[in-house]
This record gives sequence, C-alpha cells and structure tokens, in this order.
Amino acid sequence: MDRIAIIGLGYIGASIGYTLRLNHGKRYRVVGFDYDSKTQQKADKSGALDESNWALGDAIRDADIVVIATPAAAAKELFSDMAGYLKPGAVVTDTTSTAGTITGWAEEYLPKSVGFISGHPLVSGVGIEEANGAAFSGARWALAPTASVPQDAVRRTIRLVEDLGAKPLFISLEEHDSYIAAATNLPIIVSNAMMLAAARSPSWREIGKFATDQFGEVSSASRFNPDLSIGSLTGNTEMTIHWIDQMIIELADFRVMLEDESCAEPDSLLLGTLNDAWDARLRWENGIEPGVIERPALPSSGDMMLGVLVGHAVAERLRGVRNRTD
Amino acid sequence: MDRIAIIGLGYIGASIGYTLRLNHGKRYRVVGFDYDSKTQQKADKSGALDESNWALGDAIRDADIVVIATPAAAAKELFSDMAGYLKPGAVVTDTTSTAGTITGWAEEYLPKSVGFISGHPLVSGVGIEEANGAAFSGARWALAPTASVPQDAVRRTIRLVEDLGAKPLFISLEEHDSYIAAATNLPIIVSNAMMLAAARSPSWREIGKFATDQFGEVSSASRFNPDLSIGSLTGNTEMTIHWIDQMIIELADFRVMLEDESCAEPDSLLLGTLNDAWDARLRWENGIEPGVIERPALPSSGDMMLGVLVGHAVAERLRGVRNRTD
Repeated sequence: MDRIAIIGLGYIGASIGYTLRLNHGKRYRVVGFDYDSKTQQKADKSGALDESNWALGDAIRDADIVVIATPAAAAKELFSDMAGYLKPGAVVTDTTSTAGTITGWAEEYLPKSVGFISGHPLVSGVGIEEANGAAFSGARWALAPTASVPQDAVRRTIRLVEDLGAKPLFISLEEHDSYIAAATNLPIIVSNAMMLAAARSPSWREIGKFATDQFGEVSSASRFNPDLSIGSLTGNTEMTIHWIDQMIIELADFRVMLEDESCAEPDSLLLGTLNDAWDARLRWENGIEPGVIERPALPSSGDMMLGVLVGHAVAERLRGVRNRTD
Repeated sequence: MDRIAIIGLGYIGASIGYTLRLNHGKRYRVVGFDYDSKTQQKADKSGALDESNWALGDAIRDADIVVIATPAAAAKELFSDMAGYLKPGAVVTDTTSTAGTITGWAEEYLPKSVGFISGHPLVSGVGIEEANGAAFSGARWALAPTASVPQDAVRRTIRLVEDLGAKPLFISLEEHDSYIAAATNLPIIVSNAMMLAAARSPSWREIGKFATDQFGEVSSASRFNPDLSIGSLTGNTEMTIHWIDQMIIELADFRVMLEDESCAEPDSLLLGTLNDAWDARLRWENGIEPGVIERPALPSSGDMMLGVLVGHAVAERLRGVRNRTD
C-alpha cells in the first residue's frame, strides 16, 4: 500500500482523494492537508480522505507519493516548507499548469533524494464543491519528467495517473508551457477581458439583462479563483503575451471586415471567416484532424489599429513616418 | 383560438411550437413553415406543429399571429414574399437580435394593415435538436414596438410572450440594439476570434490536446451557425465595432500588466483586475447590483499598441508626431 499525501484540497486535490478511495482503496492510503482548515474539514467530512492531517510536516512525513494540488504560486514556499520532512525515495508531483516554473522550484528547494515530476491533469472544475470521483476519467494527464528523474519515480507516477482513470501524455517542459499558454491562459485572459469590457460600461446594468448563456459561457473563466488564474498566467508571461497579441490581431481583422459595407453578403470575408472558426471548432470538438486556415487578405491590421488608437487623421501622418523608417 | 404561423423552425421556432402545443393547445393552432423542407419535416414529426404547410403563402394566409424565427438576414426577402398574403389586422413579430434593421424592413415591405412588433427572446440554443417546451420558461423577452403599432397588436404579443412562459421587457429599438451589441455580438466575435487565434497556429494540433472545458466554453459561440451569427453582427455594425475596440483596450491593459515584473505579487494590478472581473461576474450571475470598476492606472494602452503593431523604435518616433498634432 502506498501512502499518498495530497496538499491542497480544491477541485483537483479532493477529486484525487475521492477517485483513489472509490476505486483503489486497497492500494493507497490517502492523507490530506490544506492551508485553509475549513477546506480540509470539508474534504475530510465528505469522504475524500482516509486521514486528515493538520500539520504539513506530519501529512508528508511518511508519504510515498506527495501530490501538490495548490495554486502554482504557492508551490515555491510549499517546497521550501516540505524539504525537511520528505522521505528519501518519495515521489513528488504537481497538478498545476506551470510545468517549467514549478520544476525549477522543485530543483531548487526539494532534497535530491526525492524525485519530482511535473504533472498536469487536463481537466477543469472549480472548488471542492464540484470535486468528484470521475473527474479524471478518460482525461489526458500531461507528465513532463526531466532527464534526471529516476525511472522508478516515473513508473510510479504513471501508475497513479492510470489509477485515477487518466491517460499519461509525455511532453517536454517547454512544449507543455507553450501549449498551455494558448489552451488555458488565452481563454482566461479573453474571458476576464470581455467581462471587464462589458462591466465597465455605464450601461452594464441594462446590458446584463440582455446577456444570456452565450455571454455567460464566453465570460466563464472569470468565475475562476483569481489566485489560481494568476499563477497560470504569470508562470509563462512571455507566451501568454504572445497569445494576447494573436487575439488582438484577430479582433482587428474582424473590425476591418465589419467596416466593409458588403460584409453581410453571402460571399463576404466576414462570413468566410466565421465559417473557418466554425469548422475549426467542430473539428476540435470531434477529434478530427485540423485543416489549414488561411488568413483573409485584408488591409493591414496595424494601419487599422493606428486609426483606432490615435485617430485617423494622426494615423495618416504616422504612416508617412513609418514608410520613411521601414 | 388564434392561428399562429411560425416561419423558421430552428431552436426558437420549434420551441415556440412545442411550448404552445404543450401548455396552450386550446388557445393556439400552430402552423409551421421552413425554407428547408427537412427541418420542417423534423418539426412536424417531433410534434412541434398542429399543421405543416409547404407553401409560405398558405402558411400565413389566415394567421392571426406570424412569428419570424429565421436568421435576421432572411427577413428582408421574407417580408417582401409575405406581403401579399397577410390578413388585415394580423400581428407580425420576430425573434431575432436585430430590432432596428428588421423593424425598418417591416415598415418598408409589410402592408400597413398589419402590426409589426420587434421581439427577441433572451435565450440561446442551437438547432431544432435542442428545441424544447421549456426553452422560454422564466426568460426575458424584449419587445420594442414603435409608436405607430396598434395597442391591440401589442396586447396580443404580450399575451403570446406570457403564454410562452417568458417575461416581456419593453425597450426602444435603439437601446435594444446597443445592449445586444455587447451582450450577444461581443461574445460571438470574441469566441470566434479566440478559436481562430489558436487554430491558425502551426502547433494547433498539439494545443488542441491541452485545451479543456475552459477553452471549449470561451470558444463556444464559434459553434453557432455562421449564417445566424453574421445576421446579428451586421445588424448593428457600428456598435459591434465599438465593443471590439473596448475588448482590444482590455486586452492591451492585460498585456501591459503582464509585462510588469512584479505582476505575480499579491498587490499587483493584474490580481486586482482579475478580482474586479471575478466580482463583476459573480454579481451578474447572482443578480446583485453591479459595482463601479475603476480602470487600473497604466501606461497608455495606445502607446503600448503602437509598439506591438509597428515596433518599438518606430513607435518612439510616432509618439513625437502625435504629440505635435494633439
């Protein structure tokens, strides 16, 4: 029997507890700890844990596997606090979306006698209230072990992931973080930005009445705990910014297309572009090989943005300056 | 008994049929027509209609109420086709999100002997497959009658909306369309733009594996039928563009905040801004009075965008030009 300590008992942590106790009660003894004692009490009472431990040191002291399911930002201090208590040969893995940063912290603070493997279940959910024993069923679980991690630690982590019903997906730290910037950070930023764009309006009180599921779904990532979101966003700032730029370019394209007087016609670039997005979405949803999407031939988005931001008269002059300096 | 003709049998049209037949079978006789005969067959077979009529003229000839539940873009031609068949004193209403444009077409093409009232159920759903007899239960239904509409037509439309289980929300055409631009068109644009930003990437095949519910929800409006989306977007181009600009400004702000080296700190503007969005979202979700959200004090987004779009060296020169022309 492996003793597994789960640190952080939100959606992911509590779901790990439920799943192991439900399906593999004889293989694992689940110990839980959360910095928030109310959350820990909830996890304990709801049956996510075999054992609730009120001191971090006691929770991890004899653990064979330690799973970090806290916000990414908490991991640095946590690793430093954990260092003196870990059993030699223990496996430490995490569940956050910032593989590179967290692996760096693990290498800096954890003793060399334990094996750290960056892990990331590709699921989403909010809070212990939504946690359940099928949260990882059939889901992908990214694993990004570095070359120095003992094979035995990798093997035991794969076993854990499979016992949770998930499928291991091996990947490098760098790839992981660049993909996550688009897959996770981009929707977080987009959702929050849209929520703010609308809610800053003096008419928001009225607009809110007209906002239906459509608005609700697109703004849904603004419901996430900001402490969790910020960890993901700042774990890979450069790539997150890259994706913000891509998003701005797409919005600028839509702006240009809408300014075309014939944009409502059946052969418009606007309809073609909406069709491209629709096609990409359906392919993704149904696991069909993606197609190549050509960017519509438009007047430069840069020129358009200059107009938006500095006014058209000024933009005209700027174009002159730019041409001279290009 | 009122004879009601539903033109367009997608999610809205078929749901109207189901609801009236389910709850008010003695008050209404439901006649249906769709330009797509397969959709009409589905609606007929699934019990949404008392009577399926294969010619538009026959479907509306004796109708007391005609409900247009087609894409907004189809309404112009439809009104022109309908004009010769409508019974004097009939009420015509629609369910699209473009109140101003469609009311203009009604005034141009429909005979003066019928009363047209722009209507818009504030619900969302895709296709006849999702249609159901509770689609409007408790939902708001915007009504924007012009001053020239007979009171009797207004009264009968209110009765219909209430019979469908919805709550009439009276509003002017202009207000309706400006609120819808934020509540509906903004999420459509944002969703499609994000889908394209990701799917145009050479790494999209891999990114797609890492994309979970979060990405799925924020990109969900790209699932909508592009023919429907384009009608909504182009029904109110100017306001839609206004909201795209607001969205770009918010994204530019996030970009500036992420470039700050201390953005991960607990007192960062980034965390404060995520908290603002989270608060706005929860208030909206729970029907709590919105608060005032102050825009974070940041270096000008315009300056930042110039840098993104034209390169920082050029942007430096441009600032000089702008200052001279301000």
